[in-house]
Amino acid sequence: VYYSKILCCSQAVENTAMDNVATERRAEESHRQDSADLLIFIMLLTLTILTIWLFKHRRFRFLHETGLAMIYGLLVGVILRFGVHVPRNTNNVTMSCSVNASPATLLVNVSGRFYEYTLKGEVSTVKGPEVQDDEMLRKVTFDPEVFFNILLPPIIFYAGYSLKRRHFFRNLGSILAYAFMGTVISCFVIGLVMYGCVSLMKTVGQLGGDFFFTDCLLFGAIVSATDPITVLAIFNELKVDVDLYALMFGESVLNDAVAIVLSSSIGAYQPAGDNSHTFDATALIKSFGVFLGVFSGSFALGVATGVMTFTKLRDFPLLETALFFLMSWSTFLLAEACEMTGVVAVLFCGMTQAHYTYNNLSPDSQNRTKQLFELLNFLAENFIFSYMGLTLFTFQSHVFNPMFIIGSFISIFLGRAANIYPLSFLLNLGRKNKIGSNFQHVMMFAGLRGAMTFALSIRDTATYARRMMFSTTLLIVFLTVWVCGGGTTPVLSFMSIRVGVDSDQDNSVNGIQRRDTEHERAWPFRMWYNFDHTYLKPLLTHSGPPLTATLPACCGHLAHCLTSPQAYENEGRLHNDDSDDLVLNDGNATMYEDVTVSTDALGTRTANPKHSRMPAFGEHELVVRGTCLVMQLDDPTMSTPPPATSPPPFSDPFVDPFSEPRRNRL
Amino acid sequence: VYYSKILCCSQAVENTAMDNVATERRAEESHRQDSADLLIFIMLLTLTILTIWLFKHRRFRFLHETGLAMIYGLLVGVILRFGVHVPRNTNNVTMSCSVNASPATLLVNVSGRFYEYTLKGEVSTVKGPEVQDDEMLRKVTFDPEVFFNILLPPIIFYAGYSLKRRHFFRNLGSILAYAFMGTVISCFVIGLVMYGCVSLMKTVGQLGGDFFFTDCLLFGAIVSATDPITVLAIFNELKVDVDLYALMFGESVLNDAVAIVLSSSIGAYQPAGDNSHTFDATALIKSFGVFLGVFSGSFALGVATGVMTFTKLRDFPLLETALFFLMSWSTFLLAEACEMTGVVAVLFCGMTQAHYTYNNLSPDSQNRTKQLFELLNFLAENFIFSYMGLTLFTFQSHVFNPMFIIGSFISIFLGRAANIYPLSFLLNLGRKNKIGSNFQHVMMFAGLRGAMTFALSIRDTATYARRMMFSTTLLIVFLTVWVCGGGTTPVLSFMSIRVGVDSDQDNSVNGIQRRDTEHERAWPFRMWYNFDHTYLKPLLTHSGPPLTATLPACCGHLAHCLTSPQAYENEGRLHNDDSDDLVLNDGNATMYEDVTVSTDALGTRTANPKHSRMPAFGEHELVVRGTCLVMQLDDPTMSTPPPATSPPPFSDPFVDPFSEPRRNRL
Repeated sequence: VYYSKILCCSQAVENTAMDNVATERRAEESHRQDSADLLIFIMLLTLTILTIWLFKHRRFRFLHETGLAMIYGLLVGVILRFGVHVPRNTNNVTMSCSVNASPATLLVNVSGRFYEYTLKGEVSTVKGPEVQDDEMLRKVTFDPEVFFNILLPPIIFYAGYSLKRRHFFRNLGSILAYAFMGTVISCFVIGLVMYGCVSLMKTVGQLGGDFFFTDCLLFGAIVSATDPITVLAIFNELKVDVDLYALMFGESVLNDAVAIVLSSSIGAYQPAGDNSHTFDATALIKSFGVFLGVFSGSFALGVATGVMTFTKLRDFPLLETALFFLMSWSTFLLAEACEMTGVVAVLFCGMTQAHYTYNNLSPDSQNRTKQLFELLNFLAENFIFSYMGLTLFTFQSHVFNPMFIIGSFISIFLGRAANIYPLSFLLNLGRKNKIGSNFQHVMMFAGLRGAMTFALSIRDTATYARRMMFSTTLLIVFLTVWVCGGGTTPVLSFMSIRVGVDSDQDNSVNGIQRRDTEHERAWPFRMWYNFDHTYLKPLLTHSGPPLTATLPACCGHLAHCLTSPQAYENEGRLHNDDSDDLVLNDGNATMYEDVTVSTDALGTRTANPKHSRMPAFGEHELVVRGTCLVMQLDDPTMSTPPPATSPPPFSDPFVDPFSEPRRNRL
Repeated sequence: VYYSKILCCSQAVENTAMDNVATERRAEESHRQDSADLLIFIMLLTLTILTIWLFKHRRFRFLHETGLAMIYGLLVGVILRFGVHVPRNTNNVTMSCSVNASPATLLVNVSGRFYEYTLKGEVSTVKGPEVQDDEMLRKVTFDPEVFFNILLPPIIFYAGYSLKRRHFFRNLGSILAYAFMGTVISCFVIGLVMYGCVSLMKTVGQLGGDFFFTDCLLFGAIVSATDPITVLAIFNELKVDVDLYALMFGESVLNDAVAIVLSSSIGAYQPAGDNSHTFDATALIKSFGVFLGVFSGSFALGVATGVMTFTKLRDFPLLETALFFLMSWSTFLLAEACEMTGVVAVLFCGMTQAHYTYNNLSPDSQNRTKQLFELLNFLAENFIFSYMGLTLFTFQSHVFNPMFIIGSFISIFLGRAANIYPLSFLLNLGRKNKIGSNFQHVMMFAGLRGAMTFALSIRDTATYARRMMFSTTLLIVFLTVWVCGGGTTPVLSFMSIRVGVDSDQDNSVNGIQRRDTEHERAWPFRMWYNFDHTYLKPLLTHSGPPLTATLPACCGHLAHCLTSPQAYENEGRLHNDDSDDLVLNDGNATMYEDVTVSTDALGTRTANPKHSRMPAFGEHELVVRGTCLVMQLDDPTMSTPPPATSPPPFSDPFVDPFSEPRRNRL
């Protein structure tokens, strides 16, 4: 920490008011230019929305909206690059001063007046300062932190908030295996293959700069994050098998979280091994510790704030929605301020809020929060994808190396294969409902890269290695989104995966064999479920049974204090509505379907008498076992049938108007 | 335009990787600090929301939420100022170089590597660079452009979108008089009084810097913008007389637009008179031209884009809402890019969209857009007000001058008086329904200053005069919000203004005498209404009568092309629902009540049989005349009574579930 005041050469110029005016003019001009640039993006989004509408209207399915957004971005990028040429803003001044590091803030003494400058970043040293020769292109290039701090959190939060919890928890073990072990395997496989590729390039003389082993590993971590957006929108529209959906969604959401923490752990490995860039066992252990610490810290933080935000402002939906929004955002900021990973915290915050807080909201706020986050997600998603298209032409320091690109495509193929097939084999040893080989092939094919990969790679483009990684990543995202995204529907039909599945019928025919209910709810899961239902739900929401009913008699006073009055009011109804949550129905999670899709998969608004009256045999058995478990635990009056009133929509705060039809009990 | 490359003194330092790492560390540290700072604001907002809830819950009314937000801001400001002391970030480097202007971008050559710096602004020259001694305080100070480009637009748009158009158009003449002439009068009165005050200060020796006449006028323009937020929330809650509400709301909304254009026109006056700072007739005319040009340009732009955005995406509410949001924002950006005033454009865009586009939206999107902009408005409003509180202690270059402060309080009192009383007198000469003296006193008292005044004054704090203006403005906002905002309820009862008025009963008893309907709808208004109803509504919305019915027969083919199929479908229903819009019911405008207020003023959800069956006499007469006017124009089948089906809520796209009960016809 040092404080240096450098007075190189001072020149007295008259501090006239005209100077003031000139500065103001320039600031105005710059502001006008900024507005015009932002307008380009808004127009791009508008165009995308209109085309999405046309596609939905005409029922085109060969190209998803994200692919579309990228194409528009590409077109605008081409126009900006070759069509418009705003000459260099010649007010740039280059100074060379005796500073031995670049400070975050710079005070420049211009003829007696001090101007404050903030560091924007390093400019490519390869081509020198002349590289930024087009003001327009420079202006449309965003600060990469924008992606991490503004655009990514709503997407990730929405993923957590809209998670279909029933199918997620049913396949939790497999999802965790794919997301954690699979991503780590993929990262190392890609890293090793790329290291081989880079070594080859070095001998051939194709490499124009340093590329260390840690860079290879970082590349592996960056491109290991699969994208939950494109494929799952298609899955959702086609009503693909629910277990496949749950596996893909769970993997790709957690994947992002693992990849982001993994890449920062590799960053932590770097400084110690900086001089040698060779293998270092202690640094590896340190990285592993960082990974565990950051991940569990972010997880704990997200869950803690997610649990904390149970609001009692039911009468004021505006205040409630605002509070909900602010708390989700503060989770992100809190995690960042604590040197954790905000994106991971926000993911688990979303999941916790969907599970607990959502039940406490008024129906109006449930609707508002759902719509708000849906909109934010939609805008952020389309913005990122169209920016990706744009940046292929407007980013001015691309390093495209054909060998590296070919190597990376081979490596991501191998990395994905090394993730899916061995893990599926191992998981199938333990699973009664096997993951069929057709499922494995689809998971292999549909592992496309998207927003997280882009955001991670654009974060730092200072060195040659980073720039080459960024350019290659961009190509990977384009090709996987267009080829894999567009090819998902044919592949599904080729692999004869069942489509058009109602989420109620979950004993699948093709991919996964009839499940054994006993095995599926293994004891850790059952224990957690019981604990959650008996203690956490009553404590944290208004919709559980009152604590006085679930806690032992000795804690009667305490239980009374902690139970909300509403819980008593709704005690009778709850046994019908809520006790089978997580086991039997999606509850509110079904609300978060893509409501813009007219062929809506799971959010069945109309009661389907076939399902509610005559469940399939395996289903039926499941219902009996599932509810028995609950019944024995909390209430002997369970067997009395509920009053057969069909609740009117939008009137009962505890009945989700969009949820699945209730099943009959025995 | 020049390009200078200055190589003062270069020093070769080894470009080690350690240097890289150190830079990264610093960037990380800075990012962490930013997150923590933003977290402070989020916590502040959360606290405010919780307290607002408490106040609403307990029905406290002596302090409005904006006043509350300011108090919390003050408290946190005190803590940050005196409690926390983060020592100066000593990485600031001061350079003095022979540059004769401050460039927007600076490339600094730090030992062979180029770093890009962007201009943040001028640092106070009075105390030199040492003034920013607390990193924390410096960090929580936002870029003033944030207020103009991010926080103000949603507030202003919401004001336009939620305007109660019936009462607004009825008092249009008076509102325009107060907003345009009144603001200009107020600006000049304040400017002159302040010039006297400043001259006095100069002779007494109290003035520490330059303060020109144009600065006085600018101060006048800045503090002439009255705030629509606080008082109107109280008016709304108390259900105050609708005409007083319309006058106050219309004035304060248009006021903001006038004040912002006025202040930029005064800026345009400045350069020419720069050397003398004396009166210059040509510059005055030029300023007047700028005022007219910018205002009418922004107006035209806002109306044009507001009209343009009629969407046909009814089946996809998410796309529709996203498009609506993007188009509103692009209006703002487009205006800024065209050197117009974005805030003014957004205001008129909101008003146009409420009048035309809103009718084309699906019911789901109507609800979504309403809730979205309500939330954005709420968050932006509370953020601005709590930031105001914070900035009193965290802004580090305050100039508090007791004489100037006293002078400014006297001047704003005189300016407001010179606006309201003479204009009311003149207006009463023409109005049949006079503006009573009690109304005038309330308008005088309730002219408090808020968000726009703050945003205008914080925009530029470079000179001594501007800093003194900013500090004084801050005090004016505080005092008017607390004293005038808090005192509104007592003043209303002291002035015996009718409260608890249903918006249907608009023949007021106290303030405004029984209206003469003929006079009220004078010929320009009537002509506009007919034109709007016959041509614009059918052309721009699905909800008007089809153009084939309104255009002459010779244009039959054209009319057929321009009419949407829905317009035909709804032809029959429209005569009941829509033809009396603007004259008889608020239509969708009543939807924009503060839905968080349980004692909701106008958005009566339950049908009130008294009003729908037996209107008061004056009301009745009005209904007859109003509808006759419409009836004669467009349809002879008018007299057949509508089918007496009560539409089910949320099912009929053209019936607003929150609107007032329909009146019976004769």
